[in-house]
Amino acid sequence: MSQNEEKNTLSQVDEIITPEWIIPVSRNGKRNLQALTKHSIAINKHKIVAISPTSQLLEQYSTTQHVQLPGQALIPGFVNSHTHAAMSLFKGLSDDLPLMMWLENHIWPAEKKWVDNSFCSDGVTLAVAEMLLSGTTCFNDMYFQPNMTAKVAQKLGMRATIGMLVFDFPSVWGTGWEDYLKKGLNLRDDYKHSELLSFAFAPHAPYTVSDEALGKIATLSNELSIPVHMHIHETAHEIKESLSKYGKRPLKRLQELELVNPNLIAVHMTQLQRNEIETVANHGVSVVHCPQSNMKLASGISPVQELLTANINVALGTDGNASNNDLNMFSEMKTASLLSKVYTGSAQASSAEDMLYAATMGGAKALGIDETCGSIEIGKAADLTSINLNTIQAQPLYDPVSQIVYTAGREQVTHVWVNGRLQVEDGKLTQLDEQKLISMATSWRDKIQNSRANA
Amino acid sequence: MSQNEEKNTLSQVDEIITPEWIIPVSRNGKRNLQALTKHSIAINKHKIVAISPTSQLLEQYSTTQHVQLPGQALIPGFVNSHTHAAMSLFKGLSDDLPLMMWLENHIWPAEKKWVDNSFCSDGVTLAVAEMLLSGTTCFNDMYFQPNMTAKVAQKLGMRATIGMLVFDFPSVWGTGWEDYLKKGLNLRDDYKHSELLSFAFAPHAPYTVSDEALGKIATLSNELSIPVHMHIHETAHEIKESLSKYGKRPLKRLQELELVNPNLIAVHMTQLQRNEIETVANHGVSVVHCPQSNMKLASGISPVQELLTANINVALGTDGNASNNDLNMFSEMKTASLLSKVYTGSAQASSAEDMLYAATMGGAKALGIDETCGSIEIGKAADLTSINLNTIQAQPLYDPVSQIVYTAGREQVTHVWVNGRLQVEDGKLTQLDEQKLISMATSWRDKIQNSRANA
Repeated sequence: MSQNEEKNTLSQVDEIITPEWIIPVSRNGKRNLQALTKHSIAINKHKIVAISPTSQLLEQYSTTQHVQLPGQALIPGFVNSHTHAAMSLFKGLSDDLPLMMWLENHIWPAEKKWVDNSFCSDGVTLAVAEMLLSGTTCFNDMYFQPNMTAKVAQKLGMRATIGMLVFDFPSVWGTGWEDYLKKGLNLRDDYKHSELLSFAFAPHAPYTVSDEALGKIATLSNELSIPVHMHIHETAHEIKESLSKYGKRPLKRLQELELVNPNLIAVHMTQLQRNEIETVANHGVSVVHCPQSNMKLASGISPVQELLTANINVALGTDGNASNNDLNMFSEMKTASLLSKVYTGSAQASSAEDMLYAATMGGAKALGIDETCGSIEIGKAADLTSINLNTIQAQPLYDPVSQIVYTAGREQVTHVWVNGRLQVEDGKLTQLDEQKLISMATSWRDKIQNSRANA
Repeated sequence: MSQNEEKNTLSQVDEIITPEWIIPVSRNGKRNLQALTKHSIAINKHKIVAISPTSQLLEQYSTTQHVQLPGQALIPGFVNSHTHAAMSLFKGLSDDLPLMMWLENHIWPAEKKWVDNSFCSDGVTLAVAEMLLSGTTCFNDMYFQPNMTAKVAQKLGMRATIGMLVFDFPSVWGTGWEDYLKKGLNLRDDYKHSELLSFAFAPHAPYTVSDEALGKIATLSNELSIPVHMHIHETAHEIKESLSKYGKRPLKRLQELELVNPNLIAVHMTQLQRNEIETVANHGVSVVHCPQSNMKLASGISPVQELLTANINVALGTDGNASNNDLNMFSEMKTASLLSKVYTGSAQASSAEDMLYAATMGGAKALGIDETCGSIEIGKAADLTSINLNTIQAQPLYDPVSQIVYTAGREQVTHVWVNGRLQVEDGKLTQLDEQKLISMATSWRDKIQNSRANA
């Protein structure tokens, strides 16, 4: 075969990316946090088709779109495993308040007055913009009007797990648990062909959903293999109330209702006894750790190192913008690691590698979408984030993973792809106008603030 | 008097700055975190000469340099009240290790091998660049070769309190405590006319400096009114060792040596009993809280809300880049507030306003330079940081102080002045070449990493 003929055998792909480092995070189900250098990846039809030494890859593939990223580390996009995206419009509305005063006097009245389709559409758009700019390619949402969350995510090309919200009480989204479930499942049907959206049942919390509703969700979750996304053991108050009302701790109640299984995405889990950690481990539950929200609302500390030691799958979430107040997975990783170290008294706890894994693959596993995303592997969707390490703040660079977790900031994100689509280029959104988004947020601010002033 | 004559009475000033908000932090010694709108400030000969409603200010002052900062908040530059600037060259060298293994197997051998005038000059330059880019205008340093720290800070126009380092044992900087003291005081003499540099005695820690040396420092500090900057009660190990060696806790020992007084800058203070908090309060000691370092090294948590409640002056520090791993006062403020809330169980603890105060005026008070900087007040030096709040991440904007502490990042810093000199403009250093600094850091990385690989 002549050289010319060899050249003709080159496969044409949509895109080739050549960063300084590739951090796969996982490979064939195994942790792989070692940075590859002098490697490139090839993307075709939204998927990663090759990861090889650059010279070798360029002998096999050609493209009209070869993105060179010198000084940059390519990682799987972050999976923000718990948020309430639309609440972005309440960011900074009321801080430094005790949880119940915050909820009862500020957040709930504001929600009652403002939350509708328009609010949720705008709030989710703002949140998606903030998440993309900080390297997040997938979010797990729980909020009113999941129809709008789904619509906005699909329209913007953002990957999301949409929470089929369930409460016992009526709200703008439903009249009671049966109505919520019906609406949620109908919504899921509407998007059954989406490559981007998956769905989870999202019963709000043990204290807002009845046994009857939870039992039905357990059955449906099991039959349909749908995850269940729920705030669990968030505060000591929740435990106390459950003991008083049901005579048992919430996790025990959920276990009796057959919800404690690999479909469960247990969010917060700041209040855990040793036997409960065993239960969680034995039943394959995933835990979503939201350290900044737990700290801000003084809820408590999830024992993340103990969970890791027990081989529990741990993911990270920012929680909503009202209780954090950002959707920034960089600071969540750093905070999670530092908090774990001081909480356990061991500087070895919750290493940079552990936290980068939790922020990517751990999230994908929790959401049941780890066949699709969460790591840089052949066959997975091209959900990718490129981080510029050629900055003053990242110098000197002994170890890219350490710099990503302990020193990098969202501003170092330069390129973000979701399902192969370039969403952020040179630190700018490719399809949303930032100034228009700021104007939109400002007009909501004016309305909300004025109504408070006049209340 | 005709209109023409009136115009002639306009005073010419070096610069007028018109931001969207001015947050003075302090006024006449009182907390003043309320944001002023439609105000400007005038700067002349390095100092703030006016803060008035813009229309009024422009009737009194004119300038050839009027800086308009729409959408931005002007705050006093951050005072990083505890760092080891030159250690920036060890950033990320070794993470996730227990304190003693980290020190004994990694940091101390690296220091022994590498620290000299050249290392310190380069390390401090890199640190100053990182600090300026993130809005810090003054740092309180403790490290070997303070001669180089002073030289670099003076040359770059950075405000600093230079630690006159004291150990009992010899190092590259001195042969014993008397030699360290002599060298430190000589250095202070060299810079006695500097507008930017002040000096503090910097006995490293109770466990590395003898009673004799500390007694001498107490006398000199008192006679010359020089602050004493010291790691105190950083770890439980330190307390245990002191009890075993001296039969008393370190603070008690320092009190008997007459070091516990308003000159004392007590850094870390994670191990405090109630009576010790009273001692600190009664003697006017300032405490520097370094939450991220204390978390990373699993040292413990300084009870910052209890200190604030006891009316103790609290400052914030990043600590050195080897134990953090950044010099970013934004994340230090947020972490300090969140950690305090979860530690006390009260979401009201250590509010955004408390932390912005600690990061600016609290630091200036601790260093004894609050007549010069720490707040935006007439007569003070123009040490100023402008923060762009016209970003996606900062929307919607209900309260500038909340957004600065809970959502802003270093990348939102656009302009920084130190002593009236523009050091950062549109997010770029005005006098240092970032790529050259990165090359410098990389060459140190190569040397240090190669020597470890060959060890």
